[in-house]
Amino acid sequence: MSTIDANPPSGSRDFLPADVARRDRAFATIREVFARHGFDPLDTPAFERLEVLTGKYGEEGDQLIFKILRRGEHEASGEADLALRYDLTVPLARVAARYGSQLPTPFKRYHIAPVWRADRPGKGRYREFFQCDVDTVGSDSLVADAVTIVAVADVLDQLGLAGFRVQVNARPALAGLIEAYGVPAELEASALVALDKLDKVGVDGVAAELTDRGIPAAAIAALTADLGRDDLEEAVRERLAATDVGAAGLAQVDRVLALVGEVPGGDVVYAPVLARGLSYYTGPVFEVVHAGLDATIAAGGRYDGLIGMFQAQDVPATGGSLGLERILLLLEQAEDAAVRSGPDVLVTVMDEDGAADALALAQRLRGHGLATDLYAGGGRAKLGKQLKYADRRGVRVALIRGAEERTAGTVAVKTLTSGDQTTVAEADLPAHLLRLLHP
Amino acid sequence: MSTIDANPPSGSRDFLPADVARRDRAFATIREVFARHGFDPLDTPAFERLEVLTGKYGEEGDQLIFKILRRGEHEASGEADLALRYDLTVPLARVAARYGSQLPTPFKRYHIAPVWRADRPGKGRYREFFQCDVDTVGSDSLVADAVTIVAVADVLDQLGLAGFRVQVNARPALAGLIEAYGVPAELEASALVALDKLDKVGVDGVAAELTDRGIPAAAIAALTADLGRDDLEEAVRERLAATDVGAAGLAQVDRVLALVGEVPGGDVVYAPVLARGLSYYTGPVFEVVHAGLDATIAAGGRYDGLIGMFQAQDVPATGGSLGLERILLLLEQAEDAAVRSGPDVLVTVMDEDGAADALALAQRLRGHGLATDLYAGGGRAKLGKQLKYADRRGVRVALIRGAEERTAGTVAVKTLTSGDQTTVAEADLPAHLLRLLHP
Repeated sequence: MSTIDANPPSGSRDFLPADVARRDRAFATIREVFARHGFDPLDTPAFERLEVLTGKYGEEGDQLIFKILRRGEHEASGEADLALRYDLTVPLARVAARYGSQLPTPFKRYHIAPVWRADRPGKGRYREFFQCDVDTVGSDSLVADAVTIVAVADVLDQLGLAGFRVQVNARPALAGLIEAYGVPAELEASALVALDKLDKVGVDGVAAELTDRGIPAAAIAALTADLGRDDLEEAVRERLAATDVGAAGLAQVDRVLALVGEVPGGDVVYAPVLARGLSYYTGPVFEVVHAGLDATIAAGGRYDGLIGMFQAQDVPATGGSLGLERILLLLEQAEDAAVRSGPDVLVTVMDEDGAADALALAQRLRGHGLATDLYAGGGRAKLGKQLKYADRRGVRVALIRGAEERTAGTVAVKTLTSGDQTTVAEADLPAHLLRLLHP
Repeated sequence: MSTIDANPPSGSRDFLPADVARRDRAFATIREVFARHGFDPLDTPAFERLEVLTGKYGEEGDQLIFKILRRGEHEASGEADLALRYDLTVPLARVAARYGSQLPTPFKRYHIAPVWRADRPGKGRYREFFQCDVDTVGSDSLVADAVTIVAVADVLDQLGLAGFRVQVNARPALAGLIEAYGVPAELEASALVALDKLDKVGVDGVAAELTDRGIPAAAIAALTADLGRDDLEEAVRERLAATDVGAAGLAQVDRVLALVGEVPGGDVVYAPVLARGLSYYTGPVFEVVHAGLDATIAAGGRYDGLIGMFQAQDVPATGGSLGLERILLLLEQAEDAAVRSGPDVLVTVMDEDGAADALALAQRLRGHGLATDLYAGGGRAKLGKQLKYADRRGVRVALIRGAEERTAGTVAVKTLTSGDQTTVAEADLPAHLLRLLHP
């Protein structure tokens, strides 16, 4: 015995059966829907060469990279040559550079995988967490942007998260906003960060933050006057139409909205002050919020400047990312108590002599599609202990078959929720259980 | 542009769409079958605290552990505090110690996940590879050993790998063999390694190796005389029955064979000279070989001395491991050319005006269960280019809908394999495609 700390490392988690079952169900749905939309699955190694990752996430991001020590005689150097992947975008850029000519153009892929960041662990913030990205590489058409939104909305709907809102904006429309309201160009990013908080802090909050950020009073006055209007969208549209970049941005938004049309499970709207990853996105951007849950559950946009990072030319790209950890939490909270991940039936083992018979019985039931567990703790275990095990596994029906039942060709069927017990002829058992469990 | 090596790190692999699709299909089958047998899924972090892993795999194994550098101000120390998991057994031992009382007893879990070893990369040997383990923790009953074999055999059968042979032996039967043939006890391990090669090198090869290993000539003569017999099993059974440990081992083998009974897709036999992980296993052991493929595709056994490594007491355990990388390779080789992982249908986009119509059409077809891709490369792409893309994706049917078809309410349906093209009324399209694609 070693007196070791048996917890998982700080910021990481063990996934017990109910967690894994929920995750696998969600992943299966996501895979199925993305495939139905013509996206292909991709996977890459957990680690990359260190130089592939460094310098891609800013100084702050670089410090969060988990680096892997060199091995063998080089271990003593204390140097790293590999690192755990930090996101799924840099690996996609590497794959695009490596296999470009072997891949269809455009290349539509989704990728569900863990990433690792040495962030300070906190509530809902982990050092190992799953990401799910869906991207189209090699198309500058807004059709690709619309396709992303349609597929993401379909995934969310199929996951049971109907009631969401897709908010759409475009990078040039944000630039137009800044120009139209007279914010100095050098304060654009700062002003947009403040504006993006409208939903959270309200018009007065935004005005205060804009003042703090040194935005001229005249621009703030013009902005806040419009932000308070019921017809905010109309007011902004008018302003944008008056600038070249704003009009171009608006055209992007309207084209995407027209292409997307209606989506099941949610609505799709123009969100004039939505600002996402300002240095990252170059075209349309979107964010999916769940009103009832007050949570962003997906987001994305066009980022034409990134995927070509390992190539001699720029490569247009657009995509989205599901907020997978948050989605899994929502699914857990919404989970019907009736959703069980364990087996349907437990075959008990009443004595060593009956064990082979019990294994054969269990196997026969599996042939009828019943998830059938067998008590494997040994034939000396009392029935009470076996029923306690059944209860723990969430099993609904326990089968009891001692020497008497074996001789008579019967099985005692105990329904655990009610405690009812009936005796059934062996030949009738599968049909009886199917009626009982899947009425 | 950076002139970086775009290959994955040495010994690791990128999984392109066809690879991931094949893997996901296999994993789905494995999950489904293990669940049907009452095994629960478990997952643990990719990394563990360094001290959890070191000292568990022998000196040679320890050198293959990928260690993770400390972070922030500690990075300069060149020390590691975490390491990538090397197998799925040590994490299981940690989980058993951490959550013991929260888990059912026995705890039946399967775990499909990558592990990492800094081995010298070679043909079929990777530094990142998937393992699939299935184990029962907390039962000393041979029922648990039998349950493992039944579940593993069912998985292999459901994966389409029928035609396998499950070879069963037991650690005490091997000890009995050594005693019965007069091999000195201190040469037991050495002799068993030589005997285990019978299938590969034949009787003469085994005899030569036994001589090299310093086994007494009398023992070799007795062994080789029996090894050459057609009734090897009977001869060995007679010898084993004459020793206490041999008889006990034989009883384990026979009990497991009786409990397992017949399995679909393969046969189950006693393999008198099968020796696996001699320092690891304590009871029954098994190995699944595929005759036609000359490959070991699964193996396992009872290992009562390991899972308690982080606890104050021993914990009995038995389980098996699928040779997942080899199985995936076999599935790839066996893959019918007709198995496709791409979409069924491509909706082409003939002009910018028709793009929204094309998106809506694609979405309607998805509602009928058809995996439908949409050409997202932009409305300016010539039809030939779009059909080339369809071909690359393995799409079987392309839909063409220009202004003329839209006005007429029709769609041109082009079957890519034959080149045939017909015009179908929009309302009849889903039924037409379902007939065409899933006759």
